[in-house]
Amino acid sequence: MLEKLKQAVYEANMRLPEMHLVTFTWGNVSGIDREKGLMVIKPSGVEYENLKPEDMVVMDLDGNKVEGRYNPSTDTKTHIVLYKAFPQIGGVVHTHSPYAVGWGQAGRDIPCYGTTHADYFYGSVPCARSLTAEEIEEDYEYNTGKVIEETFRERNLNPVYVPAVICRNHGPFTWGKDPAQAVYHAGVLEEVAKMAMYTIQIDLATPAAPQHIQDKHFMRKHGPNAYYGQGNA
Amino acid sequence: MLEKLKQAVYEANMRLPEMHLVTFTWGNVSGIDREKGLMVIKPSGVEYENLKPEDMVVMDLDGNKVEGRYNPSTDTKTHIVLYKAFPQIGGVVHTHSPYAVGWGQAGRDIPCYGTTHADYFYGSVPCARSLTAEEIEEDYEYNTGKVIEETFRERNLNPVYVPAVICRNHGPFTWGKDPAQAVYHAGVLEEVAKMAMYTIQIDLATPAAPQHIQDKHFMRKHGPNAYYGQGNA
Amino acid sequence: MLEKLKQAVYEANMRLPEMHLVTFTWGNVSGIDREKGLMVIKPSGVEYENLKPEDMVVMDLDGNKVEGRYNPSTDTKTHIVLYKAFPQIGGVVHTHSPYAVGWGQAGRDIPCYGTTHADYFYGSVPCARSLTAEEIEEDYEYNTGKVIEETFRERNLNPVYVPAVICRNHGPFTWGKDPAQAVYHAGVLEEVAKMAMYTIQIDLATPAAPQHIQDKHFMRKHGPNAYYGQGNA
Amino acid sequence: MLEKLKQAVYEANMRLPEMHLVTFTWGNVSGIDREKGLMVIKPSGVEYENLKPEDMVVMDLDGNKVEGRYNPSTDTKTHIVLYKAFPQIGGVVHTHSPYAVGWGQAGRDIPCYGTTHADYFYGSVPCARSLTAEEIEEDYEYNTGKVIEETFRERNLNPVYVPAVICRNHGPFTWGKDPAQAVYHAGVLEEVAKMAMYTIQIDLATPAAPQHIQDKHFMRKHGPNAYYGQGNA
Repeated sequence: MLEKLKQAVYEANMRLPEMHLVTFTWGNVSGIDREKGLMVIKPSGVEYENLKPEDMVVMDLDGNKVEGRYNPSTDTKTHIVLYKAFPQIGGVVHTHSPYAVGWGQAGRDIPCYGTTHADYFYGSVPCARSLTAEEIEEDYEYNTGKVIEETFRERNLNPVYVPAVICRNHGPFTWGKDPAQAVYHAGVLEEVAKMAMYTIQIDLATPAAPQHIQDKHFMRKHGPNAYYGQGNA
Repeated sequence: MLEKLKQAVYEANMRLPEMHLVTFTWGNVSGIDREKGLMVIKPSGVEYENLKPEDMVVMDLDGNKVEGRYNPSTDTKTHIVLYKAFPQIGGVVHTHSPYAVGWGQAGRDIPCYGTTHADYFYGSVPCARSLTAEEIEEDYEYNTGKVIEETFRERNLNPVYVPAVICRNHGPFTWGKDPAQAVYHAGVLEEVAKMAMYTIQIDLATPAAPQHIQDKHFMRKHGPNAYYGQGNA
Repeated sequence: MLEKLKQAVYEANMRLPEMHLVTFTWGNVSGIDREKGLMVIKPSGVEYENLKPEDMVVMDLDGNKVEGRYNPSTDTKTHIVLYKAFPQIGGVVHTHSPYAVGWGQAGRDIPCYGTTHADYFYGSVPCARSLTAEEIEEDYEYNTGKVIEETFRERNLNPVYVPAVICRNHGPFTWGKDPAQAVYHAGVLEEVAKMAMYTIQIDLATPAAPQHIQDKHFMRKHGPNAYYGQGNA
Repeated sequence: MLEKLKQAVYEANMRLPEMHLVTFTWGNVSGIDREKGLMVIKPSGVEYENLKPEDMVVMDLDGNKVEGRYNPSTDTKTHIVLYKAFPQIGGVVHTHSPYAVGWGQAGRDIPCYGTTHADYFYGSVPCARSLTAEEIEEDYEYNTGKVIEETFRERNLNPVYVPAVICRNHGPFTWGKDPAQAVYHAGVLEEVAKMAMYTIQIDLATPAAPQHIQDKHFMRKHGPNAYYGQGNA
């Protein structure tokens, strides 16, 4: 079942080590079939070099395994919460890419310092708060997703305009219209996190880019009058 | 038409990912035929692995497409302004190489801290100011070029002696006698930007190199009595 | 003799340059056969590209060579002390991986800033004190091991829960149930050391992660109710 | 003539890009035949991929070309001064490796923070002063060598115990018993420079390693009772 989605999720997972976004098994990608209400996700703790498309695990949105011989990623519940909270998205990625983790461990939003950031993320990339002891005790992975949802709701952020979050003391989640775009955003985020760290090493007091520059760059790629690319991106 | 220039521009574009100067599609190279008054530039948003020489777009210096099935780079107007402002140059490069972007996001000139820098850039590499909201509204890419031109005019810089600029909140543009040399300068700039960042991490108060060292190194490669290389560089 | 262990120790040693954990010959891996009371270790100063499984040196736990045409690693006595002090372990690794060395040269424990760390190391990775002039004079490599042992005893650390130490002014030692896992921990440590350095570059005053997050992540991988992976890790 | 030395110098030069110690053409290696009083050095400004053993240039110690179709490296006079000043050495390397350049641009000695450094360099790696305007005017490359010689004489350093220097505002020179060992020391220096930068990013006030640790590590590799390696290093 869902052979095409399994293939897409498999390929998206394999891109993570190719793009140097994961070390060892520290990452996972999922994709969703909105019509069937089923999610396909990487199995837990299997090395990338041994992964095959048929190893992908099919889950329903109540967290029940529908097909697959492996256990799904331990982060499965987080992915499910994100698909429910953000109905526009079709793929989710979690990594421990090191520059993004640096911002998350420091507990800081990544400010929009320039156009590389503004081309993909409108405003700061938010750092979601740490979970409380009670939230961890109750259901760690589920509440990781709920805190991301809370972050976007309380800050009134559009998940299509800001397709990334960094969980404090943990690492980044990104998403997109499909698994491939979610991985693409994971790569952009790591590059933007690196550039932002370089920026504050040169001047710790660097302000965010002027608002009109942030607006211009985001909108020339994503607004109604976007003119970047060949008109089909 | 312009098959030889298209090939040169294609090859120069392909050097950018090889030299680790671009991530994804974040860069573009152009070249000019001064006699014909035509510019050849990379198409917008096409992945490097899919580029072919015949995909290069031919533009006139009024910004009209003369040949090509793709849209030209969104930065086309900036390239045109630079060719008009700096009649000595034959190739232009734009990248988002991360160390140079770091200096641009911090809004700082790169001081000449040593001979690696002085061998290629005479004095600081300037950081051009951000555009105003009005300049962005009027014509963003055109005014990006005009602000670079203004920077060189107001500081009285020779674009052959300083073949690079970093646009604030954005990233670097470099140029040269042809597309290949413009790419070479993009590579040198990123290495120099990295070394300068390392330098201030070791001592934030590092002064620029003494003027006589800057003069000596630039002139032994570029002055009338240059003696570096095999006499043909 | 011990052909299987020699092969395992050889393969674990060869992983070090593959994982970019050693430069030149600056690392060594050993493994132990607890029943026979014999240790197999890399020879001293032989380049990785020339190593063969039969070059591995067999030592008894009194430091006598039992088999092998080469001298064993100069760090052999340190390995022996660790096998005696920590009876649960089956493999030991020493490297000069640069981020871990940075923390060791600065004389700082690596705080647990997030889940990447907490997944493998329970609490800070300790930095063991420098040896005194007398300890160096008496027996440098032996006392390097004894100071590691002292660090774990005085801080009441469980070497299975904290399979790593950084020796001040020197570099890291890691261990595991076998040589392969010891190398895996060396790779995790370097990644964690890098992320921790990035973290304090973003905010020097970053506090350690909340205790309940440290507990949760370590226990979901290592506790009695661990649920990460496929149930066999 | 000197075919064996040309081959050794060629191979040593080719190691520089392999070890990521040079970008573009920014490095050179020479070797000396002490009996004949002749030095073999890389030609100036030729790309590494095009180099061949027969392109190496043979010079006498008065700076006259004895054989070769290319101009020798512009740094030739510096190499000659070093061979005259340090009669124990057989090979010299100059690079612009970025971490070493960072220390040189900041004008700082690299303190001995740990054993990686102490294994190869006894005490700090010195940063030689910048040349005066008069010294540059008189003979830049010759006086670069004379200032290195002055640094070792005034600080009473043994060039065999400290086979490296960093020229302020410029970059490193290293040497060894032959061209291969000189390149090896260039690689060690860059690694040590990187680790030292990481160290002060973690704690800016890090003191040098205790003297007894510096003594022990240097002497176990280089002293009369050295016991590292297989007895032939």
